[in-house]
Amino acid sequence: MTELSRLPEDELRALHEQTLARYRAFRDRGLTLNMARGKPAPEQLAQSNALLALPGEGQHTAEDGTDCRNYGGGQGLAEARRLFSALVGAPAEQTVVAENASLAMMHDNIVYSLLLGNPDSPRPWAREERVRFLCPVPGYDRHFAICEEYGIEMINIPMTGEGPDMDRVESLVAEDPTIKGIWCVPKYSNPTGEVYSDEVVERLARMETAAPDFRIFWDNAYGVHHLTDDPPELADLITTCERAGNGNRPLAFASTSKVTFAGAGLGVFGSSAANVKWYLGRAGKRAIGPDKINQLRHLAMLPDMAAVERLMDGHRRLIAPKFEAVDEAFHRVLGDHPVASWTRPKGGYFISLDTPPGCARRTVELAGEAGVVMTPAGATFPYGKDPEDRNVRVAPTFPSLEEVEMAAEGIAVATLLAATEKALGGHSGNG
Amino acid sequence: MTELSRLPEDELRALHEQTLARYRAFRDRGLTLNMARGKPAPEQLAQSNALLALPGEGQHTAEDGTDCRNYGGGQGLAEARRLFSALVGAPAEQTVVAENASLAMMHDNIVYSLLLGNPDSPRPWAREERVRFLCPVPGYDRHFAICEEYGIEMINIPMTGEGPDMDRVESLVAEDPTIKGIWCVPKYSNPTGEVYSDEVVERLARMETAAPDFRIFWDNAYGVHHLTDDPPELADLITTCERAGNGNRPLAFASTSKVTFAGAGLGVFGSSAANVKWYLGRAGKRAIGPDKINQLRHLAMLPDMAAVERLMDGHRRLIAPKFEAVDEAFHRVLGDHPVASWTRPKGGYFISLDTPPGCARRTVELAGEAGVVMTPAGATFPYGKDPEDRNVRVAPTFPSLEEVEMAAEGIAVATLLAATEKALGGHSGNG
Repeated sequence: MTELSRLPEDELRALHEQTLARYRAFRDRGLTLNMARGKPAPEQLAQSNALLALPGEGQHTAEDGTDCRNYGGGQGLAEARRLFSALVGAPAEQTVVAENASLAMMHDNIVYSLLLGNPDSPRPWAREERVRFLCPVPGYDRHFAICEEYGIEMINIPMTGEGPDMDRVESLVAEDPTIKGIWCVPKYSNPTGEVYSDEVVERLARMETAAPDFRIFWDNAYGVHHLTDDPPELADLITTCERAGNGNRPLAFASTSKVTFAGAGLGVFGSSAANVKWYLGRAGKRAIGPDKINQLRHLAMLPDMAAVERLMDGHRRLIAPKFEAVDEAFHRVLGDHPVASWTRPKGGYFISLDTPPGCARRTVELAGEAGVVMTPAGATFPYGKDPEDRNVRVAPTFPSLEEVEMAAEGIAVATLLAATEKALGGHSGNG
Repeated sequence: MTELSRLPEDELRALHEQTLARYRAFRDRGLTLNMARGKPAPEQLAQSNALLALPGEGQHTAEDGTDCRNYGGGQGLAEARRLFSALVGAPAEQTVVAENASLAMMHDNIVYSLLLGNPDSPRPWAREERVRFLCPVPGYDRHFAICEEYGIEMINIPMTGEGPDMDRVESLVAEDPTIKGIWCVPKYSNPTGEVYSDEVVERLARMETAAPDFRIFWDNAYGVHHLTDDPPELADLITTCERAGNGNRPLAFASTSKVTFAGAGLGVFGSSAANVKWYLGRAGKRAIGPDKINQLRHLAMLPDMAAVERLMDGHRRLIAPKFEAVDEAFHRVLGDHPVASWTRPKGGYFISLDTPPGCARRTVELAGEAGVVMTPAGATFPYGKDPEDRNVRVAPTFPSLEEVEMAAEGIAVATLLAATEKALGGHSGNG
């Protein structure tokens, strides 16, 4: 893309003045819009309102006769595991259905590894001099926050459009035994929307790792969250690792948070038999079992994967137009100017917007001053530090379509203004 | 109590033969009974069956307008905290309503302390040479299991009938900075049923501790679980500690597991403002928030403490006769012989049975062989080791009244048989 700074100065200044006027007009509308978090919209949640009265009086017995009102059943109901194991690509016996948040199960896998070590650890991670994780970037801030919380050092790995840069991943993990894990959102990655290619999955499964207890945290949060008719396929990591002789390597997670209710869904964890046994042993010290009534509740509404897919079609009808609206507004405002690129994801919850270097923070600031709250710039990188200050995450699902249309225009105008300011050699005021 | 071994040998042998015959007759009935765990009976759970269809379609909004279907609200709904804070004795602002298991919130307090230290810790507990906890005994096996899991050394403290031996507690914590905590079930203690006296609560709050980050894990699991008309009062630990200038010392827990559904209730945690802020900061890294729909569901059925009390009256009507039946059977079988003592709790879920020294394991074994599954002997002590092999925990809530009557007789006969075997100088066979 031609850089804006190569424009003749008078053209650049004219563009800046014109953009500034446009920005002020937008700001003066006094809007309050929020494009910050990947939250389902109320209309999406309403698709699962049947859950509010389920499982229904008299319905408290699992297929094996378990009284779901009482204690026990740490791995989750067999029927829930049979259904939701598809989300993590593990057999039902190697699947756990438990918490209302898969993030909690990722966190606990890390905490148990720190304090006790995983089944392949020479010692607890907390006893190591240092522990490091690879973080494909841009990525998910809540993954990075767990590492930061516990002093796990993070190493940025660039994303390529079909997953992380595997040359870099392979060379790092082969040499460095302090690298104990990698965070992956393999399908419709947060925020880039890319899907890991078969080759990337194969290389992740096969690569040599200096750490015997290396783990792939495979957060398949958007596995059934398509935005198109022809969803891409994701290779199955658990099977691929098993074939490669690295069966304990993958820890796969999914949830119904963006299928049913974001705060009251089911988390799913799948892995090797050894890892699942180890995890359940630990989790069994923490609590006597998960909320099995919530599992019955979900099964009553979603008896099979076809029902899940129908529900997700409904989500798509509600949110695909919002993604279109962002793309359209970005094209309208930014299309003629060499300032930004953005993704057109086939699924997931985000559009990733790359501004010119050094403009992301200013874009978010300008958008905020004009009434559009966005994810803080840098949030998609470890420690909140985007080395080039370029990446902005756009989350269009929660606001209404009309709000998304307005907000996207505001973001685009803010991006263009930040870019013209930068090209002119600094902020020239926007008062 | 006169020891059985002081009986004339012919009397002892006659008692043994008679008990053996009684035991064989019981065993030959081929019963299968379970008095092992403190689980609510199906009839108790049925009292909360309304939850199965609550909160009801259209009901998903909290009093402050929060859409409970979506993410967020890590501390729990304000209305849930206002109601359930009474269970932990904290103001609503210092109360967290979250997990389906309060045990998980105790576990996480320990894990965060190990990895990061609590607000008063000089360093993370995992960086200390050793960490020790005081364990009033007999006590709750799941508390001890958390310590064992993470290598926290446990020190037995005898219970006195009104809480732990405070002379011993005070002298240990004053001298030893490695002692970071104590496990307490202050009301209707598991398994002895005793209630901590005001003096014990006061001394716990005031005592000098060598560790600046010492914590009282105050598991008020049975706070509203009365078995009589005149429930004893428990002094409020959080207020007492605050008055004593040790506001950060108490971590108080409760849950609705034995109020509504054992597997699908609400956990409650209350403490100082500083501890709660610290906890929420950590828990916020683990998950985005608790299941707020389950909080609405509970509030719909239990709008106020009066409703909780009515529900607990219903529980009492169902389980008090079971406690009576155990007491009656124990009196009938054991009352004439100087072999055992047991508690008559005013609340809670357990009867604590003390056999002659060296007879607890054999009693549980004999009961098991006669078809009555009990909590393993030793389970009420750290590391599963009852130094005198005396204590047996009896959990009469789950089986039907008829089953409890039979099981209690079996346990009593097994106790008497173990005692006569022991007095005769060893097992004399029971085939």
